[in-house]
Amino acid sequence: MTSILGKSTIKSGLSCAFIVAAVLNVVTQAAYATELLPSWNDGKARQSIVEFVGKVTKEGSADFVPPAERIATFDNDGTLWAEQPLYFQFLFALDRVKALAPQHPEWQQKEPFASLLKGDLNGALAGGEPALLAIVGETMAGLTTDEYEKIVKDWLATAKHPKTGRLFPEMAYQPMVELLGYLRDNGFKTFIVSGGGVEFMRPFTEKAYGIPPEQVIGSSGKLKFELQDGKPVLIKLPEINFYDDKEAKPIAIQTFLGRRPIAAFGNSDGDLQMLQWTCDTAGFCLYVHHDDATREWAYDRQSKIGTLNKGLDEAKTDGWTVVSMKDDWKTIFVPESK
Amino acid sequence: MTSILGKSTIKSGLSCAFIVAAVLNVVTQAAYATELLPSWNDGKARQSIVEFVGKVTKEGSADFVPPAERIATFDNDGTLWAEQPLYFQFLFALDRVKALAPQHPEWQQKEPFASLLKGDLNGALAGGEPALLAIVGETMAGLTTDEYEKIVKDWLATAKHPKTGRLFPEMAYQPMVELLGYLRDNGFKTFIVSGGGVEFMRPFTEKAYGIPPEQVIGSSGKLKFELQDGKPVLIKLPEINFYDDKEAKPIAIQTFLGRRPIAAFGNSDGDLQMLQWTCDTAGFCLYVHHDDATREWAYDRQSKIGTLNKGLDEAKTDGWTVVSMKDDWKTIFVPESK
Repeated sequence: MTSILGKSTIKSGLSCAFIVAAVLNVVTQAAYATELLPSWNDGKARQSIVEFVGKVTKEGSADFVPPAERIATFDNDGTLWAEQPLYFQFLFALDRVKALAPQHPEWQQKEPFASLLKGDLNGALAGGEPALLAIVGETMAGLTTDEYEKIVKDWLATAKHPKTGRLFPEMAYQPMVELLGYLRDNGFKTFIVSGGGVEFMRPFTEKAYGIPPEQVIGSSGKLKFELQDGKPVLIKLPEINFYDDKEAKPIAIQTFLGRRPIAAFGNSDGDLQMLQWTCDTAGFCLYVHHDDATREWAYDRQSKIGTLNKGLDEAKTDGWTVVSMKDDWKTIFVPESK
Repeated sequence: MTSILGKSTIKSGLSCAFIVAAVLNVVTQAAYATELLPSWNDGKARQSIVEFVGKVTKEGSADFVPPAERIATFDNDGTLWAEQPLYFQFLFALDRVKALAPQHPEWQQKEPFASLLKGDLNGALAGGEPALLAIVGETMAGLTTDEYEKIVKDWLATAKHPKTGRLFPEMAYQPMVELLGYLRDNGFKTFIVSGGGVEFMRPFTEKAYGIPPEQVIGSSGKLKFELQDGKPVLIKLPEINFYDDKEAKPIAIQTFLGRRPIAAFGNSDGDLQMLQWTCDTAGFCLYVHHDDATREWAYDRQSKIGTLNKGLDEAKTDGWTVVSMKDDWKTIFVPESK
């Protein structure tokens, strides 16, 4: 009897530990799956992140923030994925211009399309932002939202970046993907707040960053609801509805999200107001500084894309974290598939 | 030894069961805490809900929907809380007119304010929706979003409904609160998509419905971002930014949420397009029908507030669920505090 009871005790003990471990594993699955932020060098930037997260998640501490209020907002272009030589959404639109040109003979005479079709990118971009918006607007107007989503998905699955030859979703930054996961493992809800088109981003943000469509805030075009033979559709119109940049970012956060973030991440002056709004009295603000000409690109104050000038000064004044891609990141991009 | 081992075995067994139960309890806390939809009578409406939820949550079935896609959208006024004798946000705005009148001598001569201040509600409302929007716009313009939130919270905590004498958040419908919880227990993410002002709703939706601010979509006014002595603020402007009603509801769902709901709940023709969008090929659509003049109000096709006319016909044609408040609900309102 003794030996049987003894065995049974051990079995019961093992099985209990196993069950508890299995149950807990489901709950905290991702939390300890990998080393903490493995692609980050152990410098000031990494330390500032870990310190902030430790502080706001420590129950009983003066800095503790309840999970529901742990909102973190991220710019996308230049913060979560690359943005050179041109915002990827514009590269997508340029491909659309080429594909649609046979149906638009008038584009041969009409800027910015004429220059584009001659292969003169600089000429096409001479019109600045309005020219870019015209391209984006005209190449998708009249599509239903379902049709547009399919075109975006096809492009993302096949088009290659002109410099690296990678698929565009694989131009995401590995250290930022780790950071997103680290924050979520600590009870944060992660949002994108980007100048990019919201319907261009949503088809890939879940897979690339773990951010579901309903947590993606971006620029949007006007839509029209109609019944086509009794079937409801949403048609894309060429007019801009909301351009989510600069002052518009805190406005979008208020309108879409309704809570002030406690952490915000950007890379340009277009993100400055979002960082100011987040770090008014407390909060964690971080700029990704593109200073790695070898592994990525080096640009800041004078760049046409992703200008970081005022923001760089304010980051110093206000003690925000500035990440040197060159020094703080062991790796730049996520692994390529296959 | 035998008895000691025996005791220890039992203890270990108990403690294992206790630990497992405690761990599981954290995970499924709310799921079995109460009887299923206890305020619903066991009729067709309740059955249709339970059947739908059973179907989409059954793994391996043809109708299974992964949790991430279990999006349910709810109208607010007349669907989650009452809307008579007038949308509660307008009652709030009327109280603001009275409070602000001394600072606005021009209102004594200016409609709709002049009629209102004389106590002539019908005269004030003769101007229709533009008059109502003018009241809402002018009574909050110039406030920061933080100031406005405080005013709304104070009003919600003190103002009483003219007929029932209840606080307004206690005019929420108990059966709908149970339904929201039931859906969430089954992996749904619940959203509000309302014509009401988003900043008027967010201060109470979490407590009243368990819906956090970032899952509330509504009408919004224009905002202005500025630095006041270096401090970032968002100022409310009198202009409408987005009026979230009728055709605008599916547009808002696409712009804010980016996924098509699989279930939608409304009570008026203002919700019709949201229901059409949701129930195009599959999905669950439900109208709350106000037919209980004794316990609530009875109104539909001819009502100025919450007109349900086309929607009532389409619900029959398309086989949507129509809830009779009189017959399907055991209780109307949530319990009053104290």
